[in-house]
This record gives sequence, C-alpha cells and structure tokens, in this order.
Amino acid sequence: MNFVAALNDVAAKNLHVLEEQIKLSIADDPFIYEACAPLIKGGKRLRPMLFLLCANAKSPCPPEKTMPLATALELIHTASLVHDDIIDTSKKRRGVETANAKYGAQIAVLVGDYLFAKAFQLVADNNYGAQVQLILSKLVKNLCVGEIMQDRSLFEVPTLAEYYTRINLKTAVFLSSCCRLGAIVAELDTREVENLTAYGSGLGLAFQIIDDLLDFFGDEKITGKPHGGDLKSGVITLPVIRALDVSDEADTLRELVTRGEVTRADIDAAIKIIQAADAVDYCRTRAEAHIESARVNLPLTLTTSVSLALEQIADFVVDRTR
Amino acid sequence: MNFVAALNDVAAKNLHVLEEQIKLSIADDPFIYEACAPLIKGGKRLRPMLFLLCANAKSPCPPEKTMPLATALELIHTASLVHDDIIDTSKKRRGVETANAKYGAQIAVLVGDYLFAKAFQLVADNNYGAQVQLILSKLVKNLCVGEIMQDRSLFEVPTLAEYYTRINLKTAVFLSSCCRLGAIVAELDTREVENLTAYGSGLGLAFQIIDDLLDFFGDEKITGKPHGGDLKSGVITLPVIRALDVSDEADTLRELVTRGEVTRADIDAAIKIIQAADAVDYCRTRAEAHIESARVNLPLTLTTSVSLALEQIADFVVDRTR
Repeated sequence: MNFVAALNDVAAKNLHVLEEQIKLSIADDPFIYEACAPLIKGGKRLRPMLFLLCANAKSPCPPEKTMPLATALELIHTASLVHDDIIDTSKKRRGVETANAKYGAQIAVLVGDYLFAKAFQLVADNNYGAQVQLILSKLVKNLCVGEIMQDRSLFEVPTLAEYYTRINLKTAVFLSSCCRLGAIVAELDTREVENLTAYGSGLGLAFQIIDDLLDFFGDEKITGKPHGGDLKSGVITLPVIRALDVSDEADTLRELVTRGEVTRADIDAAIKIIQAADAVDYCRTRAEAHIESARVNLPLTLTTSVSLALEQIADFVVDRTR
Repeated sequence: MNFVAALNDVAAKNLHVLEEQIKLSIADDPFIYEACAPLIKGGKRLRPMLFLLCANAKSPCPPEKTMPLATALELIHTASLVHDDIIDTSKKRRGVETANAKYGAQIAVLVGDYLFAKAFQLVADNNYGAQVQLILSKLVKNLCVGEIMQDRSLFEVPTLAEYYTRINLKTAVFLSSCCRLGAIVAELDTREVENLTAYGSGLGLAFQIIDDLLDFFGDEKITGKPHGGDLKSGVITLPVIRALDVSDEADTLRELVTRGEVTRADIDAAIKIIQAADAVDYCRTRAEAHIESARVNLPLTLTTSVSLALEQIADFVVDRTR
C-alpha cells in the first residue's frame, strides 16, 4: 500500500496545496530557504495529512482554516528531524545530505529552532487560539522528553513499560495530536475528538513498533539505511526486548547490545537471534493490535471517504516498507 | 550600578516571585529539573524585568497577568543560551558547567527545545492571545536568523551595516519585544507601545555593543571569561571593525582576525591595536548614543518610579562590568 494511494480525493488535492505552503513557509529568509528546501523534500507528510483528513472528517473545511496548521505540523516534524540528525550525527536523511553534515551542528541547531519558531508563528498568525497552541507546545515538550529518555539510557535494556512510555512520547502523542487538532479545527463533538485522538495514538504506537522492526529487517535499498542503526547507536527497541525475554541465546544478545560498541558482525548476530526467537511475529502482532484499537476508535459519524482513508493509512502503517 | 539596585520596588518584589516561577516552570519532569535547575540560576533576568517594568508602567498589573509571560521570556533566553553553548562548545556559563559539557550535545539540544516549548506552553496556558504569541515566535525566529548570520561569516569582517543587522536580530529585537509585550499586557496606547519598543531597541543595541567591548576589555575575574573569546571563535565585532577602519596597523589586524586560527598572542596583539586606535571610545560613544535614543523614547506618561528604573537600567547597560 502506497501512502498517497491511501488518501481520499480531498486529502490528495490538499497534498499539492500543502507542498506549496510548506515551501512558502520557509521563504522569509534566503539562507533559511537554501538550508531548509532540501530538508522539507520527500517526506510522507503523514502528520499534516492525518490532521487534514480529520479536519475534513464530516464536511469540507476551507483550506485557509487548515493549511497553516498543517504546514506548522510538518515544520515541527522537520525541526525535530534536523535536531535528531545532530544527535545521530547522521549524514543523510530522506536521501539528501543533512543540515548537520552540510553546515555543521551550529547552524543545524539554529535551523531547527527557526523551524519550531516559524511553526508557532504560523499558528499565532492565523488565530487558532490557545487550545491549539497548547496542544502544539505540549507535543513538542513530550517529543523532547521522549528523546531525552532514550538518549539517557543508551545501551541499557528498557522494560516493556519504559519502551512504551518512550514511543508514546516520541511518536504516538505527535500522531494523536495531529488527529485531535484536525477534529478541533473541524469543531467535532467531544466524543469524536477523543475517538480520533485514540485512533492517532494506536496508529502512532504501531507506526513506531514497525519503524523499530524495519530498522532490523527493512529492505536496505528501500529504507536507505543499513540494518541495525538503532542498535549501533545504543537504542534498544521491542524486537530486542522480546528476544531477551524468550530466546535461548538471551545472554549472548544481552552482552552484545549493552557492551557499548556494536560492530557489523554484532548486528548480524543480533538479527539471527531475534529471528530465531518469535520477536518478529511478536512485534507484528503487537503493532496489529494497536492498529486494531485505532480502527475500533474511528467514529462511525465520519464521511465514508475519510473513514476509508484513515483505515487505509492504518493498513499502510503496518504494511509499509519504509 | 548594580542591576537589582536599578529596579524599582514593584520590580524588586516581582523579582522574587519570578525566581520561584522560573523554578516551578521546569518542575514537570524530574530529569528536566535536574538538567535545567543549574542553567536558570544566576542570570540578571534583564529580559523579564524589562517586561515587568513596562507591564507596571502606569499602574500595577496583577502578577497572574505578568508572571507566566515573564517566565516564558527568561526560558526563551535560557534555551537560546543552552543552544549557544552547543555552538560555542563552551564548558561554563554563569559559572556552572553547561548542559553540553555535562550531558553532551544530544541532550543539550533537546533541553533547549524543551525550554522553548515550555515557554510557548506557558503563554498558551495563560491566554495571552495571538498578538503575544506572534511577537514571541518572531523574536525566536529573529534570534535564529541573527545567530545563523553570525555563524555563516566567521572570520569574515562584516560591514558596519551587517554588524548592526546582526546585533539587532540577536539582541535588540529581544529586548524591545520584552518592553513591547509589557506595554501590550498593560494595555498602554499605541504611541506608548511604540515608544517603549524603541526604548528597548536602543537599549538592546547598546547592550550588545558593550558586550562586544567587554569581551576584549572586561575584567576577566568579573566576566568569568578570558579576553577575546569572540575573536577566537571567529566573531568579528565593532571594536575590530572600527580599528580596521582607522588604525595604521589595520593590515596586521585584518590578517590576524581573518586567518581562521587565533592564538592567545594574536588576541593580545589585536587588543593592543584596538586600544591604540580610538575603537574603545568609538564603541562607548555609539553605545551611549543608543542609550540616549532609548532614554528620549521613554514616554512621559509612565509613573516616576518605573521611569526612573528604566533610566537606571539604561545607565546600568553602559556602565556594567559583566
């Protein structure tokens, strides 16, 4: 399932407008444009599209009411990636050289800050009100706390509860906030707002679990990243947590992932142990359960077209290859 | 002139409440508190105090209307210092180990992001409205653009106009926004808002020029930093720009500051050339002219006590030793 194919007509049409708006949003300053233009290319736009679908869930919402916030959501996501790349000292993101690699950490930090500020400016400029501002600022705070949690426990095995807290803060809160914001902008009723938020939350948990699985087992040609990047940087995720719980070779795996230095051979060995255990199935089953919970929460009051698109996005999240 | 001595009674009383509020604002998460508590200690609180003075300029403004925004302004300032320290790879700030030195760049980036987000949350949570959000987000944007401008032209001699653009974006917009926000929260009339904004702008330009002078000639025991830090990191400021313009030894100085590597001996040589030229006097004269323009812009309608405090802050800015 291709992500764009999952969108309904309204969303697909919005996607073109969104791309223009994103480009426009960074055009205030020539250097910012030069630095950011490559960074904003090629994303799936999952976050703004979730927002746009929910904003149009019962009746069409005028673009002037949705586009600035949709753009702000993608800018926040991009800012967090730019700051992540400093952290990961990654050289490439979405197939292009990172701001960090191109301009150095100094400027990458500032470009990320600029994008955060621009997102909040877009929201203030378009009078979304305090409730929207609050959701956005909390989302960014949670994102930071989730990332800090991760960075402070590198090469340590988290409990299942710690893993869930982390992926909730890092990913699920963001996706559920996008849905919630859409529902709020569309002025849906409280129950619909809560249900769409729960949809986004299930989607987000599944999204991150699949992401963590793809890091080990994705097609490197499609993901563009060598296997085991998380392990190499010390981030221990669900496939490892599960294998440690059930594998006969748990001791070997534990030594390997907590040693603090991970070689190519270590990653290959870890992948073998994970595969020999039921970890892949276990992760898929968990992700599918979250997707099922997302699906169950979809309000019955949405238009068929949006409902179908949100269901297809749910399918996309578990079936995706990158 | 001591900064606190410059404050009027209302502001001095507010300062204690502010310190508590700042501490409280980072208490949501235990690690954030642990990481940020040392960072928020020991600042002059110039920005929130300017805001508080302007908010109380004609009649007392209730703390619940001022404290969240005052706190947000100091958090934004602190966030920018945390991100600056990543950039400067500084080891100490305000006498304590930087977040960067203590936790590494990864976490320092995220702690700064968290503080920015928390600032916007405080403002959204307290219903300051879109105008305030807009001023805040633009202030952060300008700060970033000013810093980026600086980082992209290290070891290059800026024109006087480029220098002014940079210090305006980096410092003057911030201080003038603090005054403007105070005037807006106090619901002063348009003319008073503009005049207090102009006061803050003059103050900010003078503040940065004096800062740039102190970097060469400050008492190292008081500033806590060795002379010539700017030069060492490639930031060329007004004392050098002026000396390059008038000194007989301009060629030597130019070679020295643009070479890309600056030794202790180079800094001593540069200081000698700057001193032999009229650069110190020139910078002081410029700073005093901006302070004079700040002073002239002070509305006559303010209470005597606030007016006096703002005048004394102006004195403090040119007379300060750190």
